[in-house]
Amino acid sequence: MTRILLVSHSPRIAEGLAEMIEQMATDTSAVRILPLGGTSDGDLGTDPIRILNAMQETEEGDCTLVFCDIGSSIMSAEAALDMIDDEALKSRIHLVDAPLVEGAFAAGVVATTTADPEEIISQALESRDQRKFE
Amino acid sequence: MTRILLVSHSPRIAEGLAEMIEQMATDTSAVRILPLGGTSDGDLGTDPIRILNAMQETEEGDCTLVFCDIGSSIMSAEAALDMIDDEALKSRIHLVDAPLVEGAFAAGVVATTTADPEEIISQALESRDQRKFE
Repeated sequence: MTRILLVSHSPRIAEGLAEMIEQMATDTSAVRILPLGGTSDGDLGTDPIRILNAMQETEEGDCTLVFCDIGSSIMSAEAALDMIDDEALKSRIHLVDAPLVEGAFAAGVVATTTADPEEIISQALESRDQRKFE
Repeated sequence: MTRILLVSHSPRIAEGLAEMIEQMATDTSAVRILPLGGTSDGDLGTDPIRILNAMQETEEGDCTLVFCDIGSSIMSAEAALDMIDDEALKSRIHLVDAPLVEGAFAAGVVATTTADPEEIISQALESRDQRKFE
C-alpha cells in the first residue's frame, strides 16, 4: 500500500486535501491518505512527533510518501525522518519535493494504478513543471 | 490594495490557506484574502460565477491575483475572467501560474511590503523553483 502523508501548517488544508484526493483515489486497499495538519493542539503549525508517529504506523511492504507545504513543515518532516533508526523502515519513506496540493493529488491518483514509489514520485514531481495558464 | 483569490476544489483548503496567509499578512489595508473553495453548495468543485463575482467586487486601484489548485479550478478561473467585459478591470486581474499554497503564501507575504503586482507575481512564481528537500 502507498501511504501519503500531508504535512500542512493548517489542519483544514490537510483534511480538505485528503478529502479531495480520496474522491479520486477510491481504492483504499492501494492508497491511504493521512492528513497531518497543525500542531497537536490543532493550532496552525506542525509537529515532528506527530509526523514521526505517522511514519512509524506502517506495515511491512508499505511505502510512505510525505508532502509538505512551507517552511517549518519541511523541517518538521526532515526532523521526523531523522528520528527513525530502523533503516529498512526509513528506506520506504520518501520526502517528495513537490507542491503540496498539486503533487499529493497527482501522487494519489497514480498510486491507484501502481505501487511503484519511483513512478508515483516521478508523477508528483511533474506537477512542478505543469503550467496552469498559457 | 492587493486582493488574493484562492480557488480550490475544497472549501477547507481555501479557508485554511486564507487563515495561514492572514497570520503572516496582518496588514489588512494592504492585502485581502478571499477564499473561494468548493461549489456554491459547499461541495468539492469550483464555480465560475462565484469567482466572477469575487473578481468584480473590487475598488478602483485594487489589484487582484488569482491562485488555483488543479484541473477545473483553472478552467473556472479562466472562464470567469473571460466573462469580464470591462477592460480596465480585466487588466487589474492576474491569473498566477504558481502552486496554490506555496504561491499564494509567498504573494500574501510580499503584498504587505509592496503593491506592485509584477513584484508580487514574480515572488509567487519563484515558489515553483524553490526546492523543499536536498
